[in-house]
Amino acid sequence: MSEQKKTRTTVDIYGQQYSIVGSDSTSYIRLVASIVDDKMREISDKNPNLDSSKLAVLTAVNVVYDYLKLKDELEALQQKIKNEEG
Amino acid sequence: MSEQKKTRTTVDIYGQQYSIVGSDSTSYIRLVASIVDDKMREISDKNPNLDSSKLAVLTAVNVVYDYLKLKDELEALQQKIKNEEG
Repeated sequence: MSEQKKTRTTVDIYGQQYSIVGSDSTSYIRLVASIVDDKMREISDKNPNLDSSKLAVLTAVNVVYDYLKLKDELEALQQKIKNEEG
Repeated sequence: MSEQKKTRTTVDIYGQQYSIVGSDSTSYIRLVASIVDDKMREISDKNPNLDSSKLAVLTAVNVVYDYLKLKDELEALQQKIKNEEG
């Protein structure tokens, strides 16, 4: 990891600025930030009384759901390939 | 969706209680909550000065990164299968 160039990108998520350091390109970091921003706004529209901290936690919950669904899909596909090869 | 039974589960994430409604089992909802809780604690350990709102946003950012990585992996595998079939 130490050989990879790290970039610092400032992004705006739900009206707050965040400085994100990583080896990804600025445009990739902006993409990730915009996905989080979109999701926060989507959840906020449905739950207008949530404070921003709870809103962010529920956004994280939401993304973990999506992550696990995708993980199941990937594992099922890997298993299918394994069965066909075996 | 309306035919699926909805359950309401109360979970604790980073010291706050959340009531989550969904068609998943209580144990699945608890699993999702525990992943978010773990990630928040992990990020908080590395950034002890973050307030809980920013911490939750950075947790969401983190999970979106993992999500996109997994999505790339899934799409690459789907493409590979398609190429082998074609």
